[in-house]
Amino acid sequence: MPPGTYSVVVSLGLPDVGPDRNWKGIAISLLVIAGVLSLIGLSIILLSKYDGPKSSGTHLTLDDLFVREFQEHDPDAKWLNDEEIIFRTWDGDVVIANTQNNETNILLKNTTFATFKASKFAVSPDRNFVLLGYDVKQVYRHSFLASYLIYNLHTREVRELNPPEVFDSVLQFASWGVRAQQLVYIFENNIYYQTDVKSSSWRLTSSGQEGKVFNGITDWLYEEEVLHSHVGHWWSPDGSRLAYLTLNDTLVPNMFLPHFTGSLYPRGQQYPYPKVGQVNPTVKLYAITLDGGFQTTELEPPNSFEKSDFYITMIKWVTEDKITVRWLNRAQNTSILSLCDVTMGTCVKNEEPVFSKNGNTFFLTMAIKHGGRGSFRHIAMISDQLNGNEVNMRHLTSGSWEVSEMLAYDEMVDTVVLAVHPFQRECLTCSLFKPQCSYYNAILSPDYQYVLLNCKGPGVPITTLHKISDMSKHETLEKNNVLRDALTYRNIPRRDIRTLQINNFGVIILTNCHGNKAWMMLTLPIDFDEATEHPLLLIVDSAPGGQAVNDRFVLDWDSVLVSSDNIIVARLDGRGSGFLGQRVLHEVHQRLGTVEVQDQIAAVEILTKLPYIDRNKVAVYGKAYGGFLSSLLLLSFGSLFKCGVAVAPVTDWRLYGSAFTERYFGFPVKDERKYQISSLVPHNTSTGHLKILIVHGTADATVHFQHSAELVKLLSTSNINYTLQIFPDEGHNIDSSRHYMLNSIITFFRECFQEETPVAPTVSKDDD
Amino acid sequence: MPPGTYSVVVSLGLPDVGPDRNWKGIAISLLVIAGVLSLIGLSIILLSKYDGPKSSGTHLTLDDLFVREFQEHDPDAKWLNDEEIIFRTWDGDVVIANTQNNETNILLKNTTFATFKASKFAVSPDRNFVLLGYDVKQVYRHSFLASYLIYNLHTREVRELNPPEVFDSVLQFASWGVRAQQLVYIFENNIYYQTDVKSSSWRLTSSGQEGKVFNGITDWLYEEEVLHSHVGHWWSPDGSRLAYLTLNDTLVPNMFLPHFTGSLYPRGQQYPYPKVGQVNPTVKLYAITLDGGFQTTELEPPNSFEKSDFYITMIKWVTEDKITVRWLNRAQNTSILSLCDVTMGTCVKNEEPVFSKNGNTFFLTMAIKHGGRGSFRHIAMISDQLNGNEVNMRHLTSGSWEVSEMLAYDEMVDTVVLAVHPFQRECLTCSLFKPQCSYYNAILSPDYQYVLLNCKGPGVPITTLHKISDMSKHETLEKNNVLRDALTYRNIPRRDIRTLQINNFGVIILTNCHGNKAWMMLTLPIDFDEATEHPLLLIVDSAPGGQAVNDRFVLDWDSVLVSSDNIIVARLDGRGSGFLGQRVLHEVHQRLGTVEVQDQIAAVEILTKLPYIDRNKVAVYGKAYGGFLSSLLLLSFGSLFKCGVAVAPVTDWRLYGSAFTERYFGFPVKDERKYQISSLVPHNTSTGHLKILIVHGTADATVHFQHSAELVKLLSTSNINYTLQIFPDEGHNIDSSRHYMLNSIITFFRECFQEETPVAPTVSKDDD
Repeated sequence: MPPGTYSVVVSLGLPDVGPDRNWKGIAISLLVIAGVLSLIGLSIILLSKYDGPKSSGTHLTLDDLFVREFQEHDPDAKWLNDEEIIFRTWDGDVVIANTQNNETNILLKNTTFATFKASKFAVSPDRNFVLLGYDVKQVYRHSFLASYLIYNLHTREVRELNPPEVFDSVLQFASWGVRAQQLVYIFENNIYYQTDVKSSSWRLTSSGQEGKVFNGITDWLYEEEVLHSHVGHWWSPDGSRLAYLTLNDTLVPNMFLPHFTGSLYPRGQQYPYPKVGQVNPTVKLYAITLDGGFQTTELEPPNSFEKSDFYITMIKWVTEDKITVRWLNRAQNTSILSLCDVTMGTCVKNEEPVFSKNGNTFFLTMAIKHGGRGSFRHIAMISDQLNGNEVNMRHLTSGSWEVSEMLAYDEMVDTVVLAVHPFQRECLTCSLFKPQCSYYNAILSPDYQYVLLNCKGPGVPITTLHKISDMSKHETLEKNNVLRDALTYRNIPRRDIRTLQINNFGVIILTNCHGNKAWMMLTLPIDFDEATEHPLLLIVDSAPGGQAVNDRFVLDWDSVLVSSDNIIVARLDGRGSGFLGQRVLHEVHQRLGTVEVQDQIAAVEILTKLPYIDRNKVAVYGKAYGGFLSSLLLLSFGSLFKCGVAVAPVTDWRLYGSAFTERYFGFPVKDERKYQISSLVPHNTSTGHLKILIVHGTADATVHFQHSAELVKLLSTSNINYTLQIFPDEGHNIDSSRHYMLNSIITFFRECFQEETPVAPTVSKDDD
Repeated sequence: MPPGTYSVVVSLGLPDVGPDRNWKGIAISLLVIAGVLSLIGLSIILLSKYDGPKSSGTHLTLDDLFVREFQEHDPDAKWLNDEEIIFRTWDGDVVIANTQNNETNILLKNTTFATFKASKFAVSPDRNFVLLGYDVKQVYRHSFLASYLIYNLHTREVRELNPPEVFDSVLQFASWGVRAQQLVYIFENNIYYQTDVKSSSWRLTSSGQEGKVFNGITDWLYEEEVLHSHVGHWWSPDGSRLAYLTLNDTLVPNMFLPHFTGSLYPRGQQYPYPKVGQVNPTVKLYAITLDGGFQTTELEPPNSFEKSDFYITMIKWVTEDKITVRWLNRAQNTSILSLCDVTMGTCVKNEEPVFSKNGNTFFLTMAIKHGGRGSFRHIAMISDQLNGNEVNMRHLTSGSWEVSEMLAYDEMVDTVVLAVHPFQRECLTCSLFKPQCSYYNAILSPDYQYVLLNCKGPGVPITTLHKISDMSKHETLEKNNVLRDALTYRNIPRRDIRTLQINNFGVIILTNCHGNKAWMMLTLPIDFDEATEHPLLLIVDSAPGGQAVNDRFVLDWDSVLVSSDNIIVARLDGRGSGFLGQRVLHEVHQRLGTVEVQDQIAAVEILTKLPYIDRNKVAVYGKAYGGFLSSLLLLSFGSLFKCGVAVAPVTDWRLYGSAFTERYFGFPVKDERKYQISSLVPHNTSTGHLKILIVHGTADATVHFQHSAELVKLLSTSNINYTLQIFPDEGHNIDSSRHYMLNSIITFFRECFQEETPVAPTVSKDDD
């Protein structure tokens, strides 16, 4: 499930915000580059955003998607220092490029990867060694198990990375530190540290217990729902200290994932998974010194959280001995940001901030009211005066748009830009490469003189390097020419993004008026003809706070359907979506699946009135949270649809993980009726022709197969036809049977759209 | 899986058989009524066997099958004594009928069942009480859990049946004994005994342990594959003793059946299930005295079996203190029949026999050679002279037919019929009620003067009572008039049974010549027209030793397809089938799924040459062992079929239970290649249009879901399309989703037959 934006009431204990004498040399140039600043188009006429070939090629096929030529190559470029960039070429070589002399050197040949069957790599800070990970086995969304080799770049010698007296070990994590050859790795839930490649390992923790106590890595809940990472440790800037979480899941109920294949008596596995209202893991935060003795200091939670459940949702080192931590109560309606002194273990209350080098000033995003249109996330600058426990804050951005990510704070420019504009905001990318590029992410060089721009769409992705002082010039690191060539011979769908308005009755109207907007994206055949009727596939695939309508380049199974079957795909970001203001986001509070469904239905009703949409051939697809929505749509508004697919659907929120569900339904759960509002109840018994396909992996660790099992029991007793396609022992992403699964889904929709069975005209609705 | 006939070499240590002076008054009239003596028809022309209405009614629907009016009522009539019969009427009353005065009395009203929600009943031998079982939960094929009430027929008082100091107990078994109010029940794998309703219970065993040690009831293996019953205890004729098995499964590996629904953290259950080559349960046989002290005697296995694995496959009391036991080695190629003295625990070697009253003479069926056509099972009479350990034997029946069951031995007629014919065999039912009745079972009264005949087909079942001395007269206990009426308004398919010859190359030829015959049954639409082409559905649904072609009245899902979709259903008993001689049966030894598949293919090839069969619309269906065969047919000969269904298929014999699999593949398993011969290998990659539906319950305790999971992995990697319809938490028979499952199967075949996709003409075969 994509990370939802928390519905958090920030209680920072701040003084009133206003003009303040304490702020000297106040204006800054904050290099704010919104990671997703793509939703610029406002047209309601069709716009072709993709300038590729027009209907000259052949249809895109599912097999294409599995051919390397049709896959985007991300060079994964990173700054090594102010001048050098490391990245991986299409051929698989690891290359270092120098911004000063434009020289490029191969650090590691692709053949080295082949020799060691390695799929992961990391270069040591002193650039003498490479850590190579092989035999990688995915665990949950981010986590994986792997074995590691240390490869000497000069001598080509290789040594295995193993804990003391362990051979052929499988590690949960391994990485270089900050300095020279510092190494940290995690084995059996304990953290190990080496000062250099040749030295022996120190075990930094001893409390680790499989499936019970996690040190330096996360359990399922923290990985999927809280930190969105499997890494539970953080290096201090100079590498002298390591902060780490200890998650104690001893009292968390275990979920059992059965296994069916691979042995005579397959059994399965269990792992801690707190469902709604169950015991959560306890979390402790420690900092340990790595130079000299290993001194561990526990960083205490705020007093008000001491006796209750809480999460730690953010950890960031500020200076060598200060660390900022965001604590969040279990009900997720109070968060406290504190600045902790790791030498003392004491924390001072204070929201992921960007810090000035001295740690006294930092920047964070918070919700700010904007007239009658609700709140929007904007940047606040906070000056942290530890003496007297006083914090000052000033808003740096404002308006009916949202800041999605702050990238860095340029202290050098601080005073320089002062004269120009006190609240300057600059979109570095807004004028670049249009219309091929409007969806970027960016990585600044440590000295902020250069920026790596990863253009992610709507055209073929391209990675470029720019000098900030002259953005128009650039070097290209990856142009994805192989993909660009491959696409020349295929009919690639084009996209059309529209805005819609959500009125007070939750009805979406195609308009440009004021009020809460919703975004809609249509994916159209390249030779789209308004004079013919097309089948419509509605894809609902984002969770609250997510964004389905964006300009990111994607070739997926639905592209195949559009290309070869002449269908139109629609995506909508309605209420509950991210990046449309807090009010839109909070619309789903305590009523997941209600207003989103209304918005999707409203969109379908608008679309089916268009002359080029065949109202008798409308289908819906959704996965996970989207599976929940597509199930709701099919069961409640089945007469609008001819068929639908739910992949790994959530069908009962009481069975899902605590952190996500309680965010929307509250904690503790006092009123079961809250869940009734969001529960699946078949209303749609009139449509005997409706075809439903449910797809689920039986070893799904995120949305348990239990959800689909309960759904089919409900459908069976309600005498509603369905097909349940399960994938034995596959997880949430059905990775090993991916081709087969996508083929099933494509075939399902193809047959659905080819059949000439008539569908009941429409459901009667009050606003019809 | 239906019981297979064992491939057993009987080593009885008998002297040569021949005319023997020891036999005096040798001729007998053995009332041999073959339970399945139905396969008389030899015609190869079409024969309508059902004289029901011709195409005047409407189509039979799936919903019909779930309506009580369309269900056969079995009165389950039994003899209480020489004169009285107890049975249950269509209305649900329990009735006692007297053969002498033709009086009928209601013993228990249907309302009593309703009052106590009872679904099981048993009348005490003294006829004062009824044991009522409620809250019945099926465990495996035969076993169930239930709670019990004892209902006083006179006072209408009710008391619960509980072990001492246990309340609301759920019992594994409960039944009356032989005398008065003797009661035996099984709780937590221990046997409890009460001398009468009011006395306290004695626990006869103490070794019982859930899932480990079973006393008086069977474990999965003994229930499904060895005894074909969940009852593991036997009353001596006078009720003074009880013989029981103790099965120790402590070392048997446990299979885990996951659960998905019904709770937040569903877990599942495990139970001992020995797969091929794994540790089997050990079995011990005890006899315990019930009058006075409870003295337990262990009955020792034959010396030659002491140090190796063995099964006990049959137990029968001969006299008050003698019991006959059949011991079978694990490889199932040697069986020993012994007569045991329960007072001493000693057993004497000696095969289910019918015994004379003094226990000195008994009758059993064994394989006897018949010319060049192999062996057939016939009756042998064995005179058991315990002195000198000598046994005499004489064959009473012979010929190229098989005796399926001996019912009783009439000692009184012994000498009377002497003069008539020394080897008289008489078919009591052969001349009765034709053509409506040709498939019977029969229950003789204790004094052999009367016989209850359950006519099971091909017409609507009927239960009648006859005096043996004048079979033409009868009383009717159940005529199934409700069903008969219901059928009047429906088009019920008719049947056609044909013989085919299996030649030396395993090819079936439609012929009447000598050689091994195969039987084929076609189910035809009532208004079958030879001039039009019909889709063909081949149903493969019997295991080795089974019989798919018979005259039993059945209305099932395939009847619906024949009635409403005008298809023809074919069933074939080829090599491996029972009741066709031992050679036919043994053809599958060490090569399951080879010759059966050849025979089915040969049959399909013959059928598709018929003018009224549409060779482009041929489908196959099979369940369990049949699922194994249908999978083989689809994967190897897919081009012959348009589609096929495998329900709960066995896909790898190494994953199935020891007793069944080792019977065909041998024990110990020295050569893995034996399993290769019978394994599923996709040969049929050319037919992209082939549709395969796999159906399986995830909690199937007999054929684990593991089988289908491994199959779909194989299909996925071979890129063969399939649909897997699973039923979460359903067992082997998918009972609670039965209607839904059958609807899925019917819809699958209906859509398959309606589609006009052409099929490749045929596979090239040598004999084409």
